[in-house]
Amino acid sequence: MKFNKILENVTTYEAGKPIELVVREYGINPSDVIKLASNENPYGTSPKVVKKIEELSKNMFMYPDDSMYELKEGLANKFGLDSSNVIIGAGSDQILEFCVHAKCDSSSKILTSGITFAMYEIYAKQVGAKVLKTTDDEHNLEQFSKLYKEQGADVIFLCLPNNPLGECLNKDEVYKFLEMVNKDTLVVIDGAYQEYAKYKDEKKEIVPKDLIEKFPNTIYLGTFSKAYALGGMRVGYGLAKENIIKTLYKLRSPFNITTLSLAAAIETLKDETFVDECIAKNFEEMKRYEDYAKQKGFEYIPSYTNFITLKFGENFVSKEISQSLLEKGVIVRDLTVYGLNAIRITIGTKAQNTKVFEVLDKVLEKKQ
Amino acid sequence: MKFNKILENVTTYEAGKPIELVVREYGINPSDVIKLASNENPYGTSPKVVKKIEELSKNMFMYPDDSMYELKEGLANKFGLDSSNVIIGAGSDQILEFCVHAKCDSSSKILTSGITFAMYEIYAKQVGAKVLKTTDDEHNLEQFSKLYKEQGADVIFLCLPNNPLGECLNKDEVYKFLEMVNKDTLVVIDGAYQEYAKYKDEKKEIVPKDLIEKFPNTIYLGTFSKAYALGGMRVGYGLAKENIIKTLYKLRSPFNITTLSLAAAIETLKDETFVDECIAKNFEEMKRYEDYAKQKGFEYIPSYTNFITLKFGENFVSKEISQSLLEKGVIVRDLTVYGLNAIRITIGTKAQNTKVFEVLDKVLEKKQ
Repeated sequence: MKFNKILENVTTYEAGKPIELVVREYGINPSDVIKLASNENPYGTSPKVVKKIEELSKNMFMYPDDSMYELKEGLANKFGLDSSNVIIGAGSDQILEFCVHAKCDSSSKILTSGITFAMYEIYAKQVGAKVLKTTDDEHNLEQFSKLYKEQGADVIFLCLPNNPLGECLNKDEVYKFLEMVNKDTLVVIDGAYQEYAKYKDEKKEIVPKDLIEKFPNTIYLGTFSKAYALGGMRVGYGLAKENIIKTLYKLRSPFNITTLSLAAAIETLKDETFVDECIAKNFEEMKRYEDYAKQKGFEYIPSYTNFITLKFGENFVSKEISQSLLEKGVIVRDLTVYGLNAIRITIGTKAQNTKVFEVLDKVLEKKQ
Repeated sequence: MKFNKILENVTTYEAGKPIELVVREYGINPSDVIKLASNENPYGTSPKVVKKIEELSKNMFMYPDDSMYELKEGLANKFGLDSSNVIIGAGSDQILEFCVHAKCDSSSKILTSGITFAMYEIYAKQVGAKVLKTTDDEHNLEQFSKLYKEQGADVIFLCLPNNPLGECLNKDEVYKFLEMVNKDTLVVIDGAYQEYAKYKDEKKEIVPKDLIEKFPNTIYLGTFSKAYALGGMRVGYGLAKENIIKTLYKLRSPFNITTLSLAAAIETLKDETFVDECIAKNFEEMKRYEDYAKQKGFEYIPSYTNFITLKFGENFVSKEISQSLLEKGVIVRDLTVYGLNAIRITIGTKAQNTKVFEVLDKVLEKKQ
């Protein structure tokens, strides 16, 4: 059977390995597996939210309120916007997809950083759009500007802070860049880890209301998957001017999040204290990774997220190290596929991180 | 901002009204609202599955096993297929979307019945494909054949049984039609309500393994949203030859169902008795609707699903009746948008149906 030619060029995203796989393949007890590969919140979902979902699980047979009235109101209030500025996606991922489909076809171009969230490129390729990338690994706005001036772009993606590397541009630099972008170019500000970035350094904070007022061609994406500890529930949101939201809505299928996801997201917004505590602990623990890297003589990228990228020098091969860790029940993300001899580790709980250092010590010793 | 021109022609799907809306707009107590508008299983999710999800709700922070190993194995075993023949979607809806994107662009055509599931057309329009429809409301394979011979089609959708009307073609007629379809045309057999159809009449049963062996250009879609009572959890599946599944996978984003949805679907497959009992009760209760219709002198379409379509003659206007029912807390689906003076009612529980007849009696009396 012949398929759409565009798809010949599409690659699929390789998700972080699940605990189930390690259990199946290496016979490790599930409770002994430490998964630090997908940047979940290691402190788990707020107990208040868990309790709510236990109460509501009998509602699984029923479709959710497809207007998502309460969740959209909750987000609108949180950000000082109107609910007409809000769209909900199955993860902010799905809103990336809507953005690409709304602006692009096979004659379009998108512009991204050299190493950034892989889905930008995958969605672009799904519609046959060309992908322009800066040459630096990390976000470099001079290169963005140069490429944009030379070749133009229909959609620009800025990942602030950036996944999988962890660096983050300052708001002022971003705004300066946005000044020169044509008002017909959609700029996606992917703020999946913004809660972490603004906690560490207020200069990184992008305020969605201010952003979309000043730059009506932008959309801010947020998620419940990271700081809000609902990675498994697939809920994200886009905040933009109404004309953009209305268009993206044309691409949204009914019931795009589950009944329990909707309830969980609504409940999570009522327990921000839990989120703040998780973020504070994250940066306390990150310090331990930085110290560990220094002690071992590894480079690391200062991170504004809940993960850290450790770069190996000439003595170690990241692919081998991550495989050895995997066989010992520690799942991290190897960045070889991005052309880096590096691994990305989610900052775990205190106990998890202690275990990671122990296992990593052993692995490094063997490889030396 | 300019958007993809194709979207100008895209309409959005209007989902059945949620209980929350009736509560908000008409001030009715949630427990007094009867929602029979979205063909959910009115008996609720199996208690065993509910219990499992209560136990697992603490896992909401964690992404699901994106390989969906256990669920795919479960479905493969159920249908006598290999897991390479299975793809999981956020509802079978999402697999419809994959099918259209895999085969169509703005030069393509899809072929559907006159009145059928609205998403076929919406997905086609999202990629700018042309929509060919038969002229009869219900599936008419002679018309399908004629249109196909005259104009061709890249994707054909057969909804068996058909939503929103409830009729169902026999397997033998379908197979005869498939014989004449070109092997490069993808035929989607939407079996969202097949569990009901085959219970009522074995001649309606499409066996996926047999179907895709005989016709490698077909894909069978099933769902956990109807008989399996997980409408709110958004899990459906596609069964097809590996080359088709592999291509659809290119369009699947990672983590397209939630952690709890995955667990619920796996658990549901272990409790088929519950499903069978629900289906038996469904047809017992449907009999009451048929009797009611006869008593009132309304036409109805004999249904192979968990809903029934009542056609009003010249004395009543379906739009007014469904609005009056809504104001009294009974949510049904008005079919005016499909050009019919009819309503579609999900077959509820015994108590719900008794209430529906009471309320409908009052509404009809007033309108007369």
